[in-house]
Amino acid sequence: MEVPDISFAKKPEKIIIDTDPALLLDLRFSMPALQLAIFNVSEIYVGLLFDIYADDSMAILMAFQSPDVEILGLTTIFGNVTTDDATRNALLLCEIAGRPDVPVAEGSSEPLKVKRVGKTTYFCSDVLMGSLSSPKSEKSDLSSEVLCITNLALAVKRDSSFASKVKRVVILGGAFFALGNVTPAAEANIYGDPEAADIVFTSGANIDVVGINITTQVQLTDTHLDELRRSEGKHAQLICDMCKFYRDWHVKSDGVYGIFLHDPVSFALLVRPDLFTFKKGVVRVETQGICVGHTLMDQGLKTWNSSNPWSDYSPVSVAWTVNVEQVLCFVKENLMSLIVSVFIEQQY
Amino acid sequence: MEVPDISFAKKPEKIIIDTDPALLLDLRFSMPALQLAIFNVSEIYVGLLFDIYADDSMAILMAFQSPDVEILGLTTIFGNVTTDDATRNALLLCEIAGRPDVPVAEGSSEPLKVKRVGKTTYFCSDVLMGSLSSPKSEKSDLSSEVLCITNLALAVKRDSSFASKVKRVVILGGAFFALGNVTPAAEANIYGDPEAADIVFTSGANIDVVGINITTQVQLTDTHLDELRRSEGKHAQLICDMCKFYRDWHVKSDGVYGIFLHDPVSFALLVRPDLFTFKKGVVRVETQGICVGHTLMDQGLKTWNSSNPWSDYSPVSVAWTVNVEQVLCFVKENLMSLIVSVFIEQQY
Repeated sequence: MEVPDISFAKKPEKIIIDTDPALLLDLRFSMPALQLAIFNVSEIYVGLLFDIYADDSMAILMAFQSPDVEILGLTTIFGNVTTDDATRNALLLCEIAGRPDVPVAEGSSEPLKVKRVGKTTYFCSDVLMGSLSSPKSEKSDLSSEVLCITNLALAVKRDSSFASKVKRVVILGGAFFALGNVTPAAEANIYGDPEAADIVFTSGANIDVVGINITTQVQLTDTHLDELRRSEGKHAQLICDMCKFYRDWHVKSDGVYGIFLHDPVSFALLVRPDLFTFKKGVVRVETQGICVGHTLMDQGLKTWNSSNPWSDYSPVSVAWTVNVEQVLCFVKENLMSLIVSVFIEQQY
Repeated sequence: MEVPDISFAKKPEKIIIDTDPALLLDLRFSMPALQLAIFNVSEIYVGLLFDIYADDSMAILMAFQSPDVEILGLTTIFGNVTTDDATRNALLLCEIAGRPDVPVAEGSSEPLKVKRVGKTTYFCSDVLMGSLSSPKSEKSDLSSEVLCITNLALAVKRDSSFASKVKRVVILGGAFFALGNVTPAAEANIYGDPEAADIVFTSGANIDVVGINITTQVQLTDTHLDELRRSEGKHAQLICDMCKFYRDWHVKSDGVYGIFLHDPVSFALLVRPDLFTFKKGVVRVETQGICVGHTLMDQGLKTWNSSNPWSDYSPVSVAWTVNVEQVLCFVKENLMSLIVSVFIEQQY
């Protein structure tokens, strides 16, 4: 008996994407950088998808194609590019996705406290600025209305009731009981603004967080990429071009012949949480010392002799295991399926 | 065919034990606290065995009984008791073991930088001081001769060639990619003096470290304790008495009906490294912020974009897996075997 796909019957979740896409345009592929956030207040889901390189473009394009979500707008944030460039690139990405109508609002130009400009930071912007024409659409002043925030930390700081109003926040960031990717202690997105991340994690909001300990388990191998290139997916060719640099970087950086699907995994978590298991725990972020940017979770299994910096905060849900095969199927189906593209086009 | 036990044929390794034993004397059991170090220079093995409560007494008694090691002396350090009390207790422990001839040298009275006196610190000393007679033997001035150090960090600071002279250092401390036991970030022994631990880990010495991520896997259950009590082991009764408080503390703190064998596991690692697997990596200790005392290892599997606080240090060997069953057998055999006791007594 064939089981009907009930996901199409669901009302799409209204989402907003907060991103810093860096596009490497000589290859006409997008390489968004550190932060991609899908969020929303009250009725709307809030998701922060944080990561590096081509996989966030992939997630954005998946979100644009997905019948499960309706993108209300994009807000921008610094990361691998400045917030200025991120705004420009977000507009371009909407055009590439065939959605120039989606409003793009400019976010904060710097982190809450310390600006940590490493060698990786902004390294895409020169390539970008040299070779790309300006986007045709204009940035929106959406940020001064509903989204008078550039990231959740600022929202929490501005509105003490924000956390309780949010339906759900999905954060891609951190490394839980695992190595970081910027330093041994820190994952890139959290490292970019540890103070903000600590505010968000301790805000009391309904948070699902997925770290690189989970996302690095889901890899799109060279074979998968070939398969994708031969497919009829709406943005399959573009994504394959995008992934070329990203894939070569993985070989050099991690000895992996393929790519980590950080952002697509977080997108999967947003719409298919059933493909993950979670553990509840208080998460805090180190803001000092050699471990700056380190995310550390207390599951509350141990009775501490005295209070510590994890005491008295609300727990969040930390992704603990992932159904690698199913998430890979989900991503591939989203990227390769012509049906999904047609379905989306019918909505316009 | 019976395989001869070749361990008896080996020349015993000369070791020195650096410890802070706290003895709960109303029950006449010893409850050594944070640091127990077995170390040696040049020809001699160096081992730091760090832990809390009754399990270090167990390890010390095991070391006294073991044909694999020859204890040259004990040095003392603060931990659950002050260094003063540790010296007194170390002398008593030697008497309990029937080895009042073993010299005990007094170590440093405080950590290198910050004194972190938590609620757990020194909590045994009152019980101790109230009910026990003074040891008959006197502390030695060993520390002013060969052992002009109170811990390895001071040794490294005083003698720049110390690390290269040391044959092997075995450290029980830290929590690698796992929760701490004093705070979610920190394990007790490292938390007691993070600056010293960081100096030792980055000293270039030949270090084997075993964290509580490994040692908590080896548990002596209530059934094992009953079995031990019924055995003819030399110190079996004493150890069972010792473990009563320790076992009850585990129930309250960790929901474990039994005891973690932290120090006995480290002793196993010292004489039976074949029961473990190891991974090489640079280990650093956070000395600031909410993660103070956190041990973080970089295995060197990733090519970092830029240098970080883990760059350019020598790797150490971090215990990665443990043969739980075999280590448990090793500990039980050591604690229960009358043969070993007889063997030791023949040496006197």
